[in-house]
Order: sequence, then C-alpha cells, then structure tokens
Amino acid sequence: MPRACRYTTDVREDTGPTTPDAAGREGGVRLALVAGTTATAEIDGLSAAGADPRVMRHTPGADLDILVHGEPTIAPVVPVSPTGCPTPAVVTRAVRDLIGFDVLGVDAGIAGPTGAPTIPLGADPGRDVRDGRAVPTAGAIFDRARDVGRALPDEHLVVSETIPGGTTTALGVLTALGEPATVSSSLPENPLGQKRRVVDRALAASDLAAGDAAGDPLRAVAAVGDPVLAAATGLTVGCVESGTRVTLGGGTQLAAVAGLVRHLGVDAPLSLATTSFVADDGTAGIETLADRFDVDLHVTDPQLAAADHPATDAYLRGEAKEGAGMGGALRLFADSGVPTAALHDRIETVYDRLLADRAEGP
Amino acid sequence: MPRACRYTTDVREDTGPTTPDAAGREGGVRLALVAGTTATAEIDGLSAAGADPRVMRHTPGADLDILVHGEPTIAPVVPVSPTGCPTPAVVTRAVRDLIGFDVLGVDAGIAGPTGAPTIPLGADPGRDVRDGRAVPTAGAIFDRARDVGRALPDEHLVVSETIPGGTTTALGVLTALGEPATVSSSLPENPLGQKRRVVDRALAASDLAAGDAAGDPLRAVAAVGDPVLAAATGLTVGCVESGTRVTLGGGTQLAAVAGLVRHLGVDAPLSLATTSFVADDGTAGIETLADRFDVDLHVTDPQLAAADHPATDAYLRGEAKEGAGMGGALRLFADSGVPTAALHDRIETVYDRLLADRAEGP
Repeated sequence: MPRACRYTTDVREDTGPTTPDAAGREGGVRLALVAGTTATAEIDGLSAAGADPRVMRHTPGADLDILVHGEPTIAPVVPVSPTGCPTPAVVTRAVRDLIGFDVLGVDAGIAGPTGAPTIPLGADPGRDVRDGRAVPTAGAIFDRARDVGRALPDEHLVVSETIPGGTTTALGVLTALGEPATVSSSLPENPLGQKRRVVDRALAASDLAAGDAAGDPLRAVAAVGDPVLAAATGLTVGCVESGTRVTLGGGTQLAAVAGLVRHLGVDAPLSLATTSFVADDGTAGIETLADRFDVDLHVTDPQLAAADHPATDAYLRGEAKEGAGMGGALRLFADSGVPTAALHDRIETVYDRLLADRAEGP
Repeated sequence: MPRACRYTTDVREDTGPTTPDAAGREGGVRLALVAGTTATAEIDGLSAAGADPRVMRHTPGADLDILVHGEPTIAPVVPVSPTGCPTPAVVTRAVRDLIGFDVLGVDAGIAGPTGAPTIPLGADPGRDVRDGRAVPTAGAIFDRARDVGRALPDEHLVVSETIPGGTTTALGVLTALGEPATVSSSLPENPLGQKRRVVDRALAASDLAAGDAAGDPLRAVAAVGDPVLAAATGLTVGCVESGTRVTLGGGTQLAAVAGLVRHLGVDAPLSLATTSFVADDGTAGIETLADRFDVDLHVTDPQLAAADHPATDAYLRGEAKEGAGMGGALRLFADSGVPTAALHDRIETVYDRLLADRAEGP
C-alpha cells in the first residue's frame, strides 16, 4: 500500500475536518512547538540552525516568539543560518497569519529567554550525547508531556520541534532502537558521516550497542537523545490515548518520534507531514522511516521557486529544509484553499519584519 | 469632564481599531491573564473565588485553562463559589469563542497545575499580608513583567487578573498609597470591615502607616500586596512605554494597578473596562478610583437577566461580579456587533461543558 502522498500548496484535498479554529475551541487544530536545546549542537559543523553556537542556543526561544508574536520579542536573536537562511518559523508564521491556528508552546529545555508563553515540563537543556547520559530525566519529561497531551481538548494536534542539533540526537535514538539510521540536515551537504561518528561515541559512552534499546525507547532518549524527543513522544502518546488525532509536523526528528512511539507499543494511526525539501534529500530516508513506523507520509511543496526572494531562495539551495512546524503548517495550508501566491507574499512580509529592525547577534 | 461611559452589550460604538485578530498578528488585541495566588485568600470569609481554600488555590490555573482550552485540562477543579457561581472565566471564554482574541497567560505565582502555556515571571505565591512581607520579590517581578510588556508587538493589550483574595491585597496597596480605600468583593455582601482589619494588621506588621508608600508603589506591593499586582503593573508600564495601548480589564484590583502605575509617575492614557456588577456595587467605589487615577472608565452590562440560566443567575444575586478578564472581554464584545443573545447562548455552552464531566473538588 503506498503511504506517501505528495502535495503542492495549490492542491486542495478533502481529508476531513482539519479546518483551523483560531479561537482554539474544541474540534480545532493546534500546533504544538516543542522547544529545547542540546549541548550536542555545539559540536562544530553539525547544525545550521543559527549563525554560530552562541546564537544557536537562542533559536528555540526565538522560534517560539516568531510563531506566537510574529517576531522575536524577548529572544535576542533572529535565527538565521551561517549563510543567512532565515528560520523555517518564518514559513510557519506566514501560514498562521493566513489561515489562523493556535500555537501551544512547550518548554522542553529552552536555554535562552522567550516572550512566548510555554507549558513547562521541568526539562533542562540536553547534554552532549558523547557523554552517554544526554537526558537523565527523560522519563519524567515524557510523563509530564503525556499528561499535557491527555488533557488537551483539541481534535487535532500538530506536533513540531525546534532544537538545533536535533537530527544528530534523532540519529542516536534511531541507532539505539535498531532502526534505519538516516536523518536529514539543515545544511545543504548533510554531515552524516560526522553525525554517525558522534553517535558511535555516544553509544560507546552509554554502554549501548546499536539496537540495544529496542522496545525501551526512553532508555534510548536518556542515553543518546534530547529533551525535545522525550517531550514530543510523551505529547503524542498522551494525545492518541485521549482521542486527539496527531500529525507529526517535521522531518526526520519527528520520524524518530514516531519510532519512539512505536517502540512503546502504541500502534494508533499517525501522520507525518514534511516538506518537499526533506523528501528530496536522499540522505534523509524519510520514506523508509515513515514506512518502517507505519505513518502516513504527507509531503508538501511550497513552490518557493516562484517566490524568488532572499527569504525563500536558501531553501532552493537545500538549506534549513524543515523545522519549527514548517511541514505541518504547509499541510494545513494545502488544505485551506488559499492561493500559494498569498503564502509567498506573506513569507516576505514576515521575513522583512524580522530583519527590518533587529541585529542578528545578541 | 465625565469619564465613565456605560454600555450594554447591544450597543455598538466606534472607538477605533479594537477589532480582534485571532491569529495574534501585529495590530490586534490580546488579553493577558495575570494569574497568581496569595495566602491571604485562606483567611476565612474573604473570598468566594472557589468553594473553599483548598480548592481556591487551583482557581488561577483553572481560569487560565478555561481561557486557553475552553475547560480545565490539567487544573483539577472547576472554580465555583461556595454557592455554585461559576468563575467569570466562563464569560471571558464565551466572548473569545464568539469574537476571537489571543490569550497571553502570565504566571505570577500560580500554586496549582495548569494546562495553559504561560510566561514565567519567577514569582512565588504571595504570603499572608498580615506578615507585612507579602511579596519580597515585588521589584524583580515588576521588572520582568515590564520587559515582557515592552516586547509585545500588539497594538492593544487587555490586562486582567485571577487571584483569589486579590481585593484584600488591593485594599492593602490602596491604603498604603494613601488612596481611597474601597474595593469590590466576589461575595454578595462585601466583608469590607474584615478586609480593613486584615489590612490594618498588615500595615502594622510592615511598619507602614496609611499613605506612607505614596510615590513608592513597589514598597506597597512588597509589604501588603500580591504578586499579580506587581506583574500587572509591570506589564502595563512596559506596554505604554513601547506604544501598546492598555485596557485594564477588571474591577477594583485593576483600579489598584492604575494607582500603582500613577504612583510610579507614569501618566500615559489608560482605560479601565469593568462590569456593571462592579459599577453597581456601592462599596467598590470604582468611579472614585477611576477618577482619582485619571483612567477612562468603561462599564459593560451583559444583560444577564435575559439569559435566565444557572450559569448567569448568580451574577444577578451579586456574586463574583468580575475577574479573569470578564469586564475587558465584555468591552471587546460590545464593540464587535455580535448580538447579546449569542453571548448568553455561548456562556451556557461553556458552562455546560465545564460541569458536564468534571467533579468540583480535586
């Protein structure tokens, strides 16, 4: 059975009640942005989710600010890649401006300040996975996030992430679970070899061999994961336990969340909504992961070539690709019937507002 | 110059761009619910913001939950008065359902759990004012809230509160500032004599006489106030400093916030939007306070007699009166042009949902 559906943002489909409800009343869709940090991101060359490690630690707080307020308010940076590609939060916010959906900020170890309200999970920033004890409180974070997920009254939750370095920790978890060890990258050239070396060191430090944590996913997260993986997994499990439909909105990190959920024995239907940039990244193996974890894969192409703007050109060069709910938001947008040209215009508006009156560094 | 305007929810006025923007983009209105607790509420007979003190400490978290999610999700109670009057958050949520506005949860010392995202201000629950050191960190709470207020991109912020016992602490602050010492009550018979005795003990314990804190408002809050007063004052000051228009949405507690702002030397225009129930409470003296602090008073009558429902009848008996943004939300509703009958229907819907599947106690 083919599981991957491919959309462009101009195609409207009837896929049931995903109509957003901006006031967040029951029956609507909400986008949860699970935000955190890991010291793993400070390893040179792994991530492009910020101009340098000093700035990168502020990316999750800034992404939350952008989704909630339209721009960084208290977060001291505008997250851009070393080559100037703006955070995918710009695209998610542009979609929100156009179709309206509530955002649920979740603090899974934010390191810097943010002006966005968040649900606290008591999570500290994740440690460098090379220590082999990346998230000592993974179980507690999972439990709290599951309680939040169980309690949400929404019909449909899009679960997304912002954590620089997150594909490396996702690779660690997939490896520890014995699953296909492929992940995407925010860089045009995926440093997959370097990531694998980092993961090998992490596994060695945690006395785990590849596959040793199969069926024990929280052990995998505690050893070689990150706090966002623990939180997103708990949120997803809590939602499906209480009848809230979940779309995992992201790339290989959210695919890893699907893997963690499956290794907990939860077999509820799950969708994974990602961007065409992840799907077109041969190193990511997103279709393999989706198939392996029995999730319906939805790929949306925002047709950015037609936009021809600095806010979007970097995606065409293979940068960023996904994050901060971009793929999930694009899926909602594709269902909305709003023309793609309006999305391109709005992305430029959000981008211009971000860069108009802010310096890049803290 | 007459400052008090009186509205019913059927009257539409042209008072400028208060049109809500559900996606929270720039130019819209947002309602900040500043939530906290004070041990002062545990003094017997002072507050009706919960069935008993054990339950009352959960009211702020539950009010946040209701505004954000439509019902308590993680908060373990549905806040009702000892006679069964539901929290005014029901009315605020009903308005939000009908006209759509974003909610900004602010944690100014919440004691119980909540499923709503919040901005943390590092505030602990307030102490019993009779100790004379009610909020030792009032200055730090004020500073953080001011930073948040300065950073908000909104054109218009409605500042509201949820804190059981808050009229007693407001009375303490007004007295310490040397201002008219009148406040409203969530009880039909305002226990103003008891409140004044509590405040007298508080002032004696703090070595302050009435008026001693004039011009030093944070000293008044630190001695005999509560953390919500510190936070709401900081939020208001930060907003007006950065060009965000502020409506204080509430009763005498928000009037006390206006007083604190004025004693800081801030003379920016402020509005106070309250309910007809507060305005009709002769003990509250809301017009005197509004006049004294140079704020435009807007009184909205939600015409609840026409609703004839348990969710609203208690207001006609003089219970609750205000809180959780009720007066501010009603002001936005009056501007929206939506018929009052729709509001009454929606209040019943929110109320029925709250009480349908929840027990009252934790």
